[in-house]
Amino acid sequence: MTKNDKELIFNSQESYCKGVKYLITGVDGFVGQYFVEYVQKYEPNAEILGVDIAPNCHFPIQKYNSLNLMDKKATSDMMREFAPDYIVHLASISSVGYSWREPVKCFENNTSIMLNILEAIVQNKLKTRVLSIGSSEEYGNIPMPMTEDMPLNPQNPYAVAKVSQELLGKLYAQSMGVEIVMTRSFNHIGPRQSERFVIPSFMRQLVNIRQGAENKMLVGNISVARDFSDVRDVVDAYYKILHNGQKGEVYNVCSGHAYQLHEIITMAEEILDIKVHVEVDAERLRPNDVMLILGDNTKLRTEIGWQPQYEIKQTITDILNSMRG
Amino acid sequence: MTKNDKELIFNSQESYCKGVKYLITGVDGFVGQYFVEYVQKYEPNAEILGVDIAPNCHFPIQKYNSLNLMDKKATSDMMREFAPDYIVHLASISSVGYSWREPVKCFENNTSIMLNILEAIVQNKLKTRVLSIGSSEEYGNIPMPMTEDMPLNPQNPYAVAKVSQELLGKLYAQSMGVEIVMTRSFNHIGPRQSERFVIPSFMRQLVNIRQGAENKMLVGNISVARDFSDVRDVVDAYYKILHNGQKGEVYNVCSGHAYQLHEIITMAEEILDIKVHVEVDAERLRPNDVMLILGDNTKLRTEIGWQPQYEIKQTITDILNSMRG
Repeated sequence: MTKNDKELIFNSQESYCKGVKYLITGVDGFVGQYFVEYVQKYEPNAEILGVDIAPNCHFPIQKYNSLNLMDKKATSDMMREFAPDYIVHLASISSVGYSWREPVKCFENNTSIMLNILEAIVQNKLKTRVLSIGSSEEYGNIPMPMTEDMPLNPQNPYAVAKVSQELLGKLYAQSMGVEIVMTRSFNHIGPRQSERFVIPSFMRQLVNIRQGAENKMLVGNISVARDFSDVRDVVDAYYKILHNGQKGEVYNVCSGHAYQLHEIITMAEEILDIKVHVEVDAERLRPNDVMLILGDNTKLRTEIGWQPQYEIKQTITDILNSMRG
Repeated sequence: MTKNDKELIFNSQESYCKGVKYLITGVDGFVGQYFVEYVQKYEPNAEILGVDIAPNCHFPIQKYNSLNLMDKKATSDMMREFAPDYIVHLASISSVGYSWREPVKCFENNTSIMLNILEAIVQNKLKTRVLSIGSSEEYGNIPMPMTEDMPLNPQNPYAVAKVSQELLGKLYAQSMGVEIVMTRSFNHIGPRQSERFVIPSFMRQLVNIRQGAENKMLVGNISVARDFSDVRDVVDAYYKILHNGQKGEVYNVCSGHAYQLHEIITMAEEILDIKVHVEVDAERLRPNDVMLILGDNTKLRTEIGWQPQYEIKQTITDILNSMRG
């Protein structure tokens, strides 16, 4: 048992008696499952209700509610009935590409769901503490590393929607007394992530090459550098911000290290003990790709006491192992 | 003919030949009618299409289209067909009180309409220049006078929606090349404003007292000070920003002078030659009323060359005269 584990169990003694209630929106996604596992590990007596628009949850969970959070009444009814102590609000249409194709839908999804949750808390007089997930996309083109007090310059409709969601969070914290804390989350990776995303897509290709099923790797611009965190460190940060963050405040969730995509490929090649032929696929090139995204996690470290437990090599190894079966 | 008039007629020679096309959204409101009158005066050959959700326009207008701009397809069809050179986008659910009662509706109204207009321009490859109207509410609690480069701290859902609308405007200017300019408009007053608003409500009461129909005046907190402009100066600013503003930029539209409400009452008493009994009506008191809102119009004056033509006493006189019939 690490020091970290002991502290968490100490902090969660309360929940052994009371059965603290967690509501997790967008639970059927990548981060949702990790957050559920985290709570189950550190607060085994906690009651967990997962909500998602998917008809069924793809992993075992205590309680699941298939619900469209755009439905104000259904959201309010569900919240009143469950009366969560904590909400981790992960639900979001989070694709930048989709936000250009369907800006209105993307916008309404992010801001209306946020408002429905906040209004449900206010209307039902709940004492719920909310963690609202934002994005490094909110920053846009600004100097690196990005710190929380920098002016936001969002560059796509999804990013504007996330800025709006955050402003609504701050507003309800200030004006309505809602206990809400917020993140701007940078890239996160780990086993079980959908292969629509760049790292799992690359790792799958590398595993296939290792197993002789493919002979070359298709990539986009692999000079771009991103600030990658292990999803297990991310849910640790989310749990700690949810419990100990200051009301109305925003925290960067990032590793503070940026890796170019070709560095990640080289790391995986070493782990798999192969050398692959890399080919640029024009389909994978995006116009105006930002070359470097790098966050500063000083606030998260100093105010919340978070520190990452997973080195990038460990994360890459775990992803590759999960794919090798 | 003033110097101002001459310059405008000179500037609009072009439209005498080409029949420049103006689309005015929310035309059936207070500012819409003044803007139409302004264009009719300075560009008599301009084609004007007014759009509003109201079934009919309450004043005579060349062309009117009763349309819900939340309807993406109808908006796009209308824009493609009319192919406006200029849009003055006034349509908005602009009530702070309503935005607390119906935050989702208020939010969607402001952001979705903006997106529908922007998308209609992009999809139909229009060369339209857009003026998007924002609000001093976007600033929230910050030091006075408010300048355009100050960080925004919106204090109600309407204000957050207007910040979002502005961010979308900047985004489409930067990323999609849309010719869009924006305002943050402060209080404006003038004849024909709805008596739901504070100044016309006060003026109506004063006229009624003058005419013997009432004997006392009901008020809220009359110590609050607001930056009032004459609506005729406001549409002059809008026209000039629309034509000469820098793409993607935001301009405060304000007088740069704040008046406490009791000062306005005293002014009106002097004009009407009466002294009234003022009574505070608890119903009219708002929690957390901001005591002072004052804008800085340096950018509008120096970059656009605008200057107000109406002294506050003239405006108050004109409002009172319009009510006395």
